[in-house]
Amino acid sequence: MTAESTQLKKFTLNDLQKHSTRDDCWIVVHQKVWDITSFIDEHPGGPAVILKYAGKNATSLYDAVHAPDIITEELPKDKLMGLLEDVSPADGDIQAAPEPKPVLKSVPKPVEESVVEDDEIPPLSGILSCKDFEVAASKALTPKTWAFYSSAATDLVTHRLNKEVTRRIMLRPRILRNVSNVDMKTTILGNPVSAPFFISPAAMARLAHPDGELALSRASSNQGIIQTISSNASFPMRTIMGVAPPEYPFFFQLYVNSERKKTEEILKTARNLGVKAILVTVDAPVPGKREADERAAQEGTVRSAISGGESSKDKKGSGFGRLMAQYIDKSLNWDDLAWLRQMCGDMKIVLKGVQTADDVKIAAEYGCDAVVLSNHGGRSLDGSQPSILVLMEVRRRYPHLLEKLEVYVDGGFERGSDILKALALGAKAVGIGRPYMYSLVYGQEGAEHLTEILKDELETSMRLAGLSSLSEITPRLVNTRDVDHLVDTGEDSSIVRSKL
Amino acid sequence: MTAESTQLKKFTLNDLQKHSTRDDCWIVVHQKVWDITSFIDEHPGGPAVILKYAGKNATSLYDAVHAPDIITEELPKDKLMGLLEDVSPADGDIQAAPEPKPVLKSVPKPVEESVVEDDEIPPLSGILSCKDFEVAASKALTPKTWAFYSSAATDLVTHRLNKEVTRRIMLRPRILRNVSNVDMKTTILGNPVSAPFFISPAAMARLAHPDGELALSRASSNQGIIQTISSNASFPMRTIMGVAPPEYPFFFQLYVNSERKKTEEILKTARNLGVKAILVTVDAPVPGKREADERAAQEGTVRSAISGGESSKDKKGSGFGRLMAQYIDKSLNWDDLAWLRQMCGDMKIVLKGVQTADDVKIAAEYGCDAVVLSNHGGRSLDGSQPSILVLMEVRRRYPHLLEKLEVYVDGGFERGSDILKALALGAKAVGIGRPYMYSLVYGQEGAEHLTEILKDELETSMRLAGLSSLSEITPRLVNTRDVDHLVDTGEDSSIVRSKL
Amino acid sequence: MTAESTQLKKFTLNDLQKHSTRDDCWIVVHQKVWDITSFIDEHPGGPAVILKYAGKNATSLYDAVHAPDIITEELPKDKLMGLLEDVSPADGDIQAAPEPKPVLKSVPKPVEESVVEDDEIPPLSGILSCKDFEVAASKALTPKTWAFYSSAATDLVTHRLNKEVTRRIMLRPRILRNVSNVDMKTTILGNPVSAPFFISPAAMARLAHPDGELALSRASSNQGIIQTISSNASFPMRTIMGVAPPEYPFFFQLYVNSERKKTEEILKTARNLGVKAILVTVDAPVPGKREADERAAQEGTVRSAISGGESSKDKKGSGFGRLMAQYIDKSLNWDDLAWLRQMCGDMKIVLKGVQTADDVKIAAEYGCDAVVLSNHGGRSLDGSQPSILVLMEVRRRYPHLLEKLEVYVDGGFERGSDILKALALGAKAVGIGRPYMYSLVYGQEGAEHLTEILKDELETSMRLAGLSSLSEITPRLVNTRDVDHLVDTGEDSSIVRSKL
Amino acid sequence: MTAESTQLKKFTLNDLQKHSTRDDCWIVVHQKVWDITSFIDEHPGGPAVILKYAGKNATSLYDAVHAPDIITEELPKDKLMGLLEDVSPADGDIQAAPEPKPVLKSVPKPVEESVVEDDEIPPLSGILSCKDFEVAASKALTPKTWAFYSSAATDLVTHRLNKEVTRRIMLRPRILRNVSNVDMKTTILGNPVSAPFFISPAAMARLAHPDGELALSRASSNQGIIQTISSNASFPMRTIMGVAPPEYPFFFQLYVNSERKKTEEILKTARNLGVKAILVTVDAPVPGKREADERAAQEGTVRSAISGGESSKDKKGSGFGRLMAQYIDKSLNWDDLAWLRQMCGDMKIVLKGVQTADDVKIAAEYGCDAVVLSNHGGRSLDGSQPSILVLMEVRRRYPHLLEKLEVYVDGGFERGSDILKALALGAKAVGIGRPYMYSLVYGQEGAEHLTEILKDELETSMRLAGLSSLSEITPRLVNTRDVDHLVDTGEDSSIVRSKL
Repeated sequence: MTAESTQLKKFTLNDLQKHSTRDDCWIVVHQKVWDITSFIDEHPGGPAVILKYAGKNATSLYDAVHAPDIITEELPKDKLMGLLEDVSPADGDIQAAPEPKPVLKSVPKPVEESVVEDDEIPPLSGILSCKDFEVAASKALTPKTWAFYSSAATDLVTHRLNKEVTRRIMLRPRILRNVSNVDMKTTILGNPVSAPFFISPAAMARLAHPDGELALSRASSNQGIIQTISSNASFPMRTIMGVAPPEYPFFFQLYVNSERKKTEEILKTARNLGVKAILVTVDAPVPGKREADERAAQEGTVRSAISGGESSKDKKGSGFGRLMAQYIDKSLNWDDLAWLRQMCGDMKIVLKGVQTADDVKIAAEYGCDAVVLSNHGGRSLDGSQPSILVLMEVRRRYPHLLEKLEVYVDGGFERGSDILKALALGAKAVGIGRPYMYSLVYGQEGAEHLTEILKDELETSMRLAGLSSLSEITPRLVNTRDVDHLVDTGEDSSIVRSKL
Repeated sequence: MTAESTQLKKFTLNDLQKHSTRDDCWIVVHQKVWDITSFIDEHPGGPAVILKYAGKNATSLYDAVHAPDIITEELPKDKLMGLLEDVSPADGDIQAAPEPKPVLKSVPKPVEESVVEDDEIPPLSGILSCKDFEVAASKALTPKTWAFYSSAATDLVTHRLNKEVTRRIMLRPRILRNVSNVDMKTTILGNPVSAPFFISPAAMARLAHPDGELALSRASSNQGIIQTISSNASFPMRTIMGVAPPEYPFFFQLYVNSERKKTEEILKTARNLGVKAILVTVDAPVPGKREADERAAQEGTVRSAISGGESSKDKKGSGFGRLMAQYIDKSLNWDDLAWLRQMCGDMKIVLKGVQTADDVKIAAEYGCDAVVLSNHGGRSLDGSQPSILVLMEVRRRYPHLLEKLEVYVDGGFERGSDILKALALGAKAVGIGRPYMYSLVYGQEGAEHLTEILKDELETSMRLAGLSSLSEITPRLVNTRDVDHLVDTGEDSSIVRSKL
Repeated sequence: MTAESTQLKKFTLNDLQKHSTRDDCWIVVHQKVWDITSFIDEHPGGPAVILKYAGKNATSLYDAVHAPDIITEELPKDKLMGLLEDVSPADGDIQAAPEPKPVLKSVPKPVEESVVEDDEIPPLSGILSCKDFEVAASKALTPKTWAFYSSAATDLVTHRLNKEVTRRIMLRPRILRNVSNVDMKTTILGNPVSAPFFISPAAMARLAHPDGELALSRASSNQGIIQTISSNASFPMRTIMGVAPPEYPFFFQLYVNSERKKTEEILKTARNLGVKAILVTVDAPVPGKREADERAAQEGTVRSAISGGESSKDKKGSGFGRLMAQYIDKSLNWDDLAWLRQMCGDMKIVLKGVQTADDVKIAAEYGCDAVVLSNHGGRSLDGSQPSILVLMEVRRRYPHLLEKLEVYVDGGFERGSDILKALALGAKAVGIGRPYMYSLVYGQEGAEHLTEILKDELETSMRLAGLSSLSEITPRLVNTRDVDHLVDTGEDSSIVRSKL
Repeated sequence: MTAESTQLKKFTLNDLQKHSTRDDCWIVVHQKVWDITSFIDEHPGGPAVILKYAGKNATSLYDAVHAPDIITEELPKDKLMGLLEDVSPADGDIQAAPEPKPVLKSVPKPVEESVVEDDEIPPLSGILSCKDFEVAASKALTPKTWAFYSSAATDLVTHRLNKEVTRRIMLRPRILRNVSNVDMKTTILGNPVSAPFFISPAAMARLAHPDGELALSRASSNQGIIQTISSNASFPMRTIMGVAPPEYPFFFQLYVNSERKKTEEILKTARNLGVKAILVTVDAPVPGKREADERAAQEGTVRSAISGGESSKDKKGSGFGRLMAQYIDKSLNWDDLAWLRQMCGDMKIVLKGVQTADDVKIAAEYGCDAVVLSNHGGRSLDGSQPSILVLMEVRRRYPHLLEKLEVYVDGGFERGSDILKALALGAKAVGIGRPYMYSLVYGQEGAEHLTEILKDELETSMRLAGLSSLSEITPRLVNTRDVDHLVDTGEDSSIVRSKL
């Protein structure tokens, strides 16, 4: 019990019951008594659910749906009326039925035991690669969470192509170069980072671990890389950034809300918190059809602490991604960039989800600072070109753009050598998404271990390729001839090629 | 018992036995007593089978072979002599031995049960895609029906290529376009439809569900799409069209009969019923060799209510498709189009099964209104080019033809994004065949659900591609470079290319 | 007991024992008593094995190694001394230990039972395709015989490519052509045949069925196609040809013996018997390494009735193909064609196993009448080009050669549509090898059924392609673009193409 | 007991205990008593481990870590103080705990038993191919040893490509050439060999068989081929070369040590022993990430008798390859070749691990005598180009280099026909690595059998290709068109090709 709380007035459950109407509505969350009367109509989940708990202890229900700090963030201090008197925390607490279980269905083995059975989660010391994290997550996460993170659109064609095309690009290592020291430091939009990759945004990290985005924040700041906070994060932006050192750079991923005011609020918060760049997602005006996600039943409701997006079953299924995306503005278009620029102030603007060289060109014309060539990890339009191929398309058709703005890629990058290939083809950095979600099975420690693995693989790959710094990387490092024919040339290919 | 029936004379089984000779032959079907004396020699199944039941109740046998309304359609009203007196319907009914079982071997689960075991048919609410319908059908249909619908010619090469080549075409989604509203309405041969796809014809839908083509008719008219009635439908054309609203547009698929008179009769019926277009099947002068169909044993005999085509085992096997096709005219050729035009009157003529750009060109020269690029779902000549490739061939060699007549494709299209690719390459609409047969496991409701899935997938795909109407689709939407080299150029490729 | 045999003198086993020395050596085979004294030193298996049975009944041993008629063929009539008196045929018969079991390990089911379990051999009526015969053979043949016929060289690369490249060639069917009548008759080296395929040679058909090559001979002459008799046939040439109608055309496959005199003898026999063409095998100066064949243990010894080639285990393994090939002349070269021409008289000379367009050109220059583009069914040099690709190479580089000599292909052709593709690319006919061996599981009836299947498939494919006679086939029937890039151009490709 | 040993003084265990300090330290190994006082600080494993056994019998521990002869090699003769008195050899012997088991976990079956169960190791007579040796090794070797030899870097992409690209190259056999006699003799760097392949170096052959490199040495000298001794061999160079006839040619593989003096010592030894060539490994400044090797737990410590490299577990895992490589100099570069040339004297210098044509060119400019195009069997940088493709790159871009220096390849070559393909593309010889390690399951006899298999396959392949000597091999022997497009052209391909 902190000093602050001891100064607050104490109430009993009986006292509370006097404030149980729409015009006078108190609730208890974690022993704190709040007057939420003026907030009832603003509740993203609607007023009904609040009124059901008017004058009662709503802690369990709140915890099932919200991030811990959100009520403190959202309500003014003068609405904190006092504390419930010192009883068992659960006293009078109304249980949500059924209670969501958004955390691990199973926990990793203690480190000392090294033999891992097929259905056991290995200790972190046994994890050697992104793939190992994926296998561990498939065992540790609840079926619903696993389905949400691992799923991709319809037939998984783009999801597979993302990895496959990258793997078909060969490396051309040079020999007999002094590789005693390897430097993989770089900058991303002017922010110095320890390695040329960053954490791509993914919703609701608390599903994978109670610490959720906080674990990623601590891990990334320890490791010197940048985390992109999701619009649908489970913790408030301030809380996430609060666990990193002051001034540590963060990016924020933005879904524009149909109610633009809400987006303006969020951007104002971001600006005030010192967020360095806004990654506007442009590949998902509506969510893709992720069938595994639709099929996996979910219990209870999950709600983002930032966007307020919520998920529960409807007649199309239980698609987490689809349900949380309902607030997204389908009308967003190039003309809105002027408004966005105004709202962003000094924050850089990055378009995330660019899928053609044509749109990279337009992004440059509109003055965007960077683009992420991305297909949402194969989760939006199935059949769309793999990210690495779009990068090759930019290089072939508009190579000068690679100088004009920073170009990143994500989707299927899982090895240090994958990152190296992207850099050779002109990317400034690579986004890593699902692997970080999977690493959260082990919390912050897992995310740090993943970062070290990727750095170690990149360092080893650079040495074996004869490189001692990123600046030595050139397109001649790769042999792309197995996939060159797939690159769009900017013309209606089937017609044009018939002239040959 | 309707008003009509109460006015009819009543007979006993004893009465009937007095009319049991070739010169005076009555039978009972569904309690109605018919004098079929003058019809004996016209019976497509031959006189013997009728005489066997002269003066008897033939209801069970009739039901096993015929559609319910066919006797009413084919016999003049004055041959209805009266009713069998009110006894148990089965009384005196002669059982066909063995009785055919052309309907489901198993039925879907009630909707409320959501957990589906491996050998259970899921409730319709659990069906998310064409593939789901296929899996359900593989469980629900009798082995023979499943073999008939799912089989394709010999080694299934073309069957696989149909899907594979479409999947190898990549999409190039554009970003930041206002996709709040999506319009997928179009016209097919002048008939307005709610979406750019139609139901491809398939024989004997009653095998999949007792309502057969009637379910498709109700579903397609509810959903605003067009059904193509098969020459080998299990119900008469009039009955099928009768369950849709008056004037609702229908297409009719035609196998030309070696006895041309029979075809002329059918076309006359179609004309009178207001059929909008005749899809003449040109890819099956003989049926392909579908080995799974040949192997699956069939019980009893099945007969089309339109063509009169019948199926029963012979020494080559039990091939349903092969046996029902025996009446088809192998001599049909371009010169017959003049006769066909004459017979069709105002009905449009569409060639279904065009497999080369050369033949699209000839079809245009002969004044055909449209063509369906099709290989009969891989069921005719195995090894023939996939439909989407023929579409690309037309675009490359004779792009102007795409303006001159309407070009459709079918074969392996199962996703909204598949339809989108075909449209980008110049198709006006896409035919969906097997999935509708599979949807009939759930009757009309299944066919409507399938239509909604396809519309929903197409709408989502359009939004994700940055499209708000079909008119915005261009060839630049697709990257076909992975398959461009497969497109025929109109020359003897191996010789010509050696000059390079 | 025939009239002939009743006139012969009778002997007892005791009588025989008086003739049991090298200078006076009688043996009994199938009750006939032979004086083989003068033949002892000529025995291909060496004198020792004969002397072991001097004065004894050697029927069982003889049957295990030799074809039934061979002793009658090879010994003059005056060496038949008489008959063993009428006792049990096995009386005094010396058993070979262990007795070889070169026939079926299991027999097909009676036709009336149509349900086939996984480990049962289906009745012939259930066989729909080459593949079905292959499955049946894998169950019915002894493991050794199955290994011998089904095996191919080392990693089976060419064996797989043979089928795969043919399957990658697509067909371009034309529509609306009168295909009421289909004519697939043609000539092969001037001999009229009912269809454009022939039976490729394969050794020791008696391993698959007691009737061996006799069954093939009866089947092919009934069906109007040509059988190529193997140098390593299990019956003498005269016997094989004797079961077909007089003057029926046969081809003979020749391995040239290191002892040229033996080859001259064989060719003399062929000439006298009216063989139409000699297919000289040129792709196997030594046998390929067929590991499955080497691994499968063989019991006893097998010996060809024509070449005298014999097989038994040695230190490299039990390779049937390798062991029977030991007599082949590794020095055979182009200069030997003059000698061969002289020996062949009017018989046509066909080189079997040509694997490059360059060698087709040389063959034409040397005046060969035809070539078989073949890689010995993938059994010689693994990695060599598939036959269909060599055909494409000939077409591209020396199209005029297809007019100058007849070009056949074999290796992996299993469907009527496969044959159609070869014809479209310039082949005059296609050789079918393994499938005929597999069909022998069912004896003559099996070989006829296979022939009918292939004809039926070819006829159906022609109809579906819009063809009513072989003369209408053109290269435009096929789309080879998926494999065109694999065709050798006659230049050192990797160097030349770098100029592009 | 030899004459020598009987002249030595006898000690008891009690005597020894008087010499158990750092200043007076004796130990017993195989009954011999050594004074190792002056050697304590030079011990590569550090002084601690030695002092632990001061004054004791250390035979078991010594055997677990060292090759038998190493103590005799490394210590001067005057340090042999005498013999332990004649007691049980194990008397007083200190056991290492746990004792390493670096030899077979199972032994091959006696030759007479020919039926091999799935989990049994076949007798050598049943081994027909490299693949058979691999299967046998996977059963016979300890899991750790199997993991060490069979593993490759990260996703095994290059490991697979090595084999796959070679297999995709087709052969173009010529017919009717006299192939009675086949000559496959050649020279490698002037040394006459019986066939165009050599044994590639691999570490610690004693792991696979107690005779380790000695078995390879005896086998290769018997067979007339060259063994490349690994820097990390388990026996001293002198011992390995000592079991071959005097003057028999050997190559030595060199990892340059960060302590250059140590490398100079080793090269001096090599020079003195008459080693013919030094293969400097240039593709592994650091070891690749071999995850199977990291995962497989190892017991005890293993130490090379040449480099002194040692392996034991650390926090990254148990990677044998990684741990033994810690002494390698990451700074080695082209400028060091001058120093190396000086140290090598008359020994030829070969760069092993060249992976681009550009580096072959530089190697030629620096006067190297030969290069091995190699990617360390896919064990270094995963994704690097397969060796055969680099060979094609050299041929395309700098064909004259193939005349200027000798070019070898290794990585995935397992068949005589694989070797033939490499020779056709310009290689002088092919290195065989893993197969020789696997053959050691059967000791020297296994390595000889492998050599005979490869020779036999090459001879057969040459005959079937129409070749009677290596000099007849030309590029026209192969059809590389399936992989030609993969060959780097020396330009930034994706940019350049867009001009087409």
